[in-house]
Amino acid sequence: MRLAILGLGLMGGSLGLALSRREGWQLVGWDCEEAAIAEALRRGAINEAAASPAEAVATAELVCLAVPVQATAGLMEAIASHLPPDAVVTDLGSSKVQVCAWAAERLPGVSFVGGHPMAGSERAGIAAARADLLTGAVYVLTPGAECSSDALARVAAMAEAAGARPLVYDAVRHDADVALVSHLPFVLSAALSAIAGRDPHWAESSALAASGFRDVSRLASGDVAMHRDICLSNAAAIGPRLAEAGRLLSELAEHLEDPDYLERFFAEARQARENWLARRYPESACSSPSD
Amino acid sequence: MRLAILGLGLMGGSLGLALSRREGWQLVGWDCEEAAIAEALRRGAINEAAASPAEAVATAELVCLAVPVQATAGLMEAIASHLPPDAVVTDLGSSKVQVCAWAAERLPGVSFVGGHPMAGSERAGIAAARADLLTGAVYVLTPGAECSSDALARVAAMAEAAGARPLVYDAVRHDADVALVSHLPFVLSAALSAIAGRDPHWAESSALAASGFRDVSRLASGDVAMHRDICLSNAAAIGPRLAEAGRLLSELAEHLEDPDYLERFFAEARQARENWLARRYPESACSSPSD
Repeated sequence: MRLAILGLGLMGGSLGLALSRREGWQLVGWDCEEAAIAEALRRGAINEAAASPAEAVATAELVCLAVPVQATAGLMEAIASHLPPDAVVTDLGSSKVQVCAWAAERLPGVSFVGGHPMAGSERAGIAAARADLLTGAVYVLTPGAECSSDALARVAAMAEAAGARPLVYDAVRHDADVALVSHLPFVLSAALSAIAGRDPHWAESSALAASGFRDVSRLASGDVAMHRDICLSNAAAIGPRLAEAGRLLSELAEHLEDPDYLERFFAEARQARENWLARRYPESACSSPSD
Repeated sequence: MRLAILGLGLMGGSLGLALSRREGWQLVGWDCEEAAIAEALRRGAINEAAASPAEAVATAELVCLAVPVQATAGLMEAIASHLPPDAVVTDLGSSKVQVCAWAAERLPGVSFVGGHPMAGSERAGIAAARADLLTGAVYVLTPGAECSSDALARVAAMAEAAGARPLVYDAVRHDADVALVSHLPFVLSAALSAIAGRDPHWAESSALAASGFRDVSRLASGDVAMHRDICLSNAAAIGPRLAEAGRLLSELAEHLEDPDYLERFFAEARQARENWLARRYPESACSSPSD
């Protein structure tokens, strides 16, 4: 399979590294930064470099758009008239409704399958790419209206070849669900970090911050453009989650001297996470694999 | 040094495991659960078991109260009339103003040094105790009014023997600072987990939750009584932090379609965390050691 990867950062680079270890994948890559292309070639994340998106897709059977969400629209326009007739296009973005709508407008007649591998890192760029980033990850696929079953199968095969587990999902449902399981976490993480940085006593108090602060704030180190674009493209689903979190924190602030309320709240939160861990990581029982 | 550890959970057990590897420490332990005492003996976290707090402290030079904050007051009353004349008392609680006030009331004439090692785990109990939990951790000490310099030195020596780095701190300042670096993180973590668990679509959407959700929600798995007691004993400092977080989330919710605002916010959050990482883990440059 001849795959063009447009965008050679953390995600595009990790996809390339994973597929380059499998038989039968010919990987051509492009990035807006020449240094990223050179590093992707050096690390073996791609076999060939292209000078432009148009050149990259010219002979591709499958095209993967691996840029921040807001840059996806422009990339679709750049490749639209250069795609071979049967090429299938997919992406790796964290919002699917907006991306699928752009594909319908900008890639008429093209089989587009929205994709979102549920894996990542707070580190960005090709330097942070890892061949095993997608290993075992759920890989959401949201087939567009004009998408054939063959096109869907082609993208699912790519996800499986990269070690992930494809899961066909409704785009609207996906956006609502990732607002909860992915976007709310990075906003909370960034909020914690921003509040800390604004504290006038932070120069001293930061010395007391340990593993709890480190883990809850981890996603704040993530790529700024990626976070910005996810909020812009999924505002409708993220807004209500932020409002819900704000209400919960206000209610909690009013009950900080109420032992029964506090105990119920922390017991509920603990149970919800233990239930999730037991389902998500059944092999490790109720202990977090991050330890 | 003859040390009585009252409470053989994650923290007391880890302290015992660390000190038992050093020369010159004789460790007597008590817990309200007999199974915890047996496990602490089996794992070598203590050398001797005591049948009661009074018995444990009867010949101690140093006493460490290692129970959830709200249980500390009762334990002080239980040992007050059984302490040898020169025994020094310390604790491991996450709130220091309340604990030091209880010590002044309930342990009159006793040298009390508030203690708070900045280390932990979302797992509780002696089974989760680790000899290296305190290794390299900042260990806050808040000497009480009646505390001699010799008493402070004795507790600092214990912290160092356990591998930690003692840091004398003002109790009021400590409580304000840990509300930011420790208590706000676990409340945000619990809020995320509770919101997820309440979602009517959680049975399906939980399959999409990956490493970001796992890490930001990690502290939600922490001990319920510990979290409850920390909120109760440090409500005055935690309340304003929750209000601040609520305001920030509301403001953000109103700017989800404003690219400049979003970019400034995520850039600020990212910079604050990268600055902290560089100070806190200088050896690993700007990459998180949790990876």
